[in-house]
Amino acid sequence: MTQLVYEQPLNEKTRSYLRLEYLEQQLLLNLEQDHQHRCFYPLFSLCELAERCDYRGEVLKDLDKQIKLLENWQNLPHINQQQVDKYLNKLMLARELLGSSDRPGSQLKQDRFLAALRQRFNMPGACCNFDLPQLHYWLAKPWDIRQQEYSQWIASFRALLSPIRLLLQLTRLTTEYSDAVAKAGFYQGNSKQSLSLIRVQIESQQGCYPTISGHKNRYAIHFVQFDQQKHSDKAIEFKLATCT
Amino acid sequence: MTQLVYEQPLNEKTRSYLRLEYLEQQLLLNLEQDHQHRCFYPLFSLCELAERCDYRGEVLKDLDKQIKLLENWQNLPHINQQQVDKYLNKLMLARELLGSSDRPGSQLKQDRFLAALRQRFNMPGACCNFDLPQLHYWLAKPWDIRQQEYSQWIASFRALLSPIRLLLQLTRLTTEYSDAVAKAGFYQGNSKQSLSLIRVQIESQQGCYPTISGHKNRYAIHFVQFDQQKHSDKAIEFKLATCT
Repeated sequence: MTQLVYEQPLNEKTRSYLRLEYLEQQLLLNLEQDHQHRCFYPLFSLCELAERCDYRGEVLKDLDKQIKLLENWQNLPHINQQQVDKYLNKLMLARELLGSSDRPGSQLKQDRFLAALRQRFNMPGACCNFDLPQLHYWLAKPWDIRQQEYSQWIASFRALLSPIRLLLQLTRLTTEYSDAVAKAGFYQGNSKQSLSLIRVQIESQQGCYPTISGHKNRYAIHFVQFDQQKHSDKAIEFKLATCT
Repeated sequence: MTQLVYEQPLNEKTRSYLRLEYLEQQLLLNLEQDHQHRCFYPLFSLCELAERCDYRGEVLKDLDKQIKLLENWQNLPHINQQQVDKYLNKLMLARELLGSSDRPGSQLKQDRFLAALRQRFNMPGACCNFDLPQLHYWLAKPWDIRQQEYSQWIASFRALLSPIRLLLQLTRLTTEYSDAVAKAGFYQGNSKQSLSLIRVQIESQQGCYPTISGHKNRYAIHFVQFDQQKHSDKAIEFKLATCT
């Protein structure tokens, strides 16, 4: 029995955060295991996103907001003081690092090897030997050397990605899952509080996946049968968490 | 000691063949080992190339030319009859399969799952859970099931890719390696015969890779030091094969 979690952001900020978090997970997988030239896909995706938009300002603002919130909680009774302190420390450390960091990815721009690769990487089949002999050379280096180099490249994004992971963790902690049923494959909900993230947990054996849409106060979930690629008309049991 | 082989096509046809051969190797690696969503990169690259250009006509012409050539060889003395027969059989079988095949990749266009993935795959970080919930569902299937499906998808390209592998094999067999030295990192050569492929074999320990340019009768090889990313001024020993 495989439980799958599907998440849908309900605002642009959370959408960006989830995308960056996903890319960080990919980077870490590529650092653990040798995926050859494939390791460059998430790295170059991050470079591109970080060039289009400097996320630092928004993340710093978010960190400040969370720090203030947790500081207020510190004075409340019935609060897990230890847990609050742990997160406060993490948030303040992340804030300090991000505040003093260069624009994420800016150092990688100077790297001629990466620049040459990046130019070609979006063309179909363009990692050929003759397109990129330097890549062919690099891939023949021992894995532990490549791992070190990769680790240095991704370090350039760490100050941005660690706080995002932390902020999403706190968002996910705002709610617990509750049982829900989608009648004829459809479910909708409202919330007076502004929501930022919908989470759906479902057994893969049900043979369907959710497509979720909505905005901060209203959302709809349609379940699609994977094999037929069409909307399910069955009653689908799932677990739902709506995070603020 | 790692021996690396670098290849440079000297005409457009060989360039296409090498690119398609490279993509076939990637497909096979993805069939052997679970590379998660990364398996779609070479598949979609192949779809794109096969849509831009129908390679079948050119490959069929090439197969006919090779078949005629080998048939002439059959009557020559001092020929390894068995070897020639082996290749003739392979070429004729490949010709038959390709002649009766649909346009490579055309069946995949009908697949709604693949179509949805392909639309997003070139965007940075766009394989997120919320972009493609169906991919998230698919990746949770057991590996042997995904392997079977992948095998069916790539089968659509087999009739095109097998003869290309064969034709490149024959091209590479036209010459053997001979020793060469690039003085001050530079080597150039001429040929009265039309060349289609330059092959350079070099130990990776020399710390450099070749950049090769040229056309059918003339070619130049510059060796670049990887660490400094600049032309080497040393004498570089390597092995060279110029294939017709």
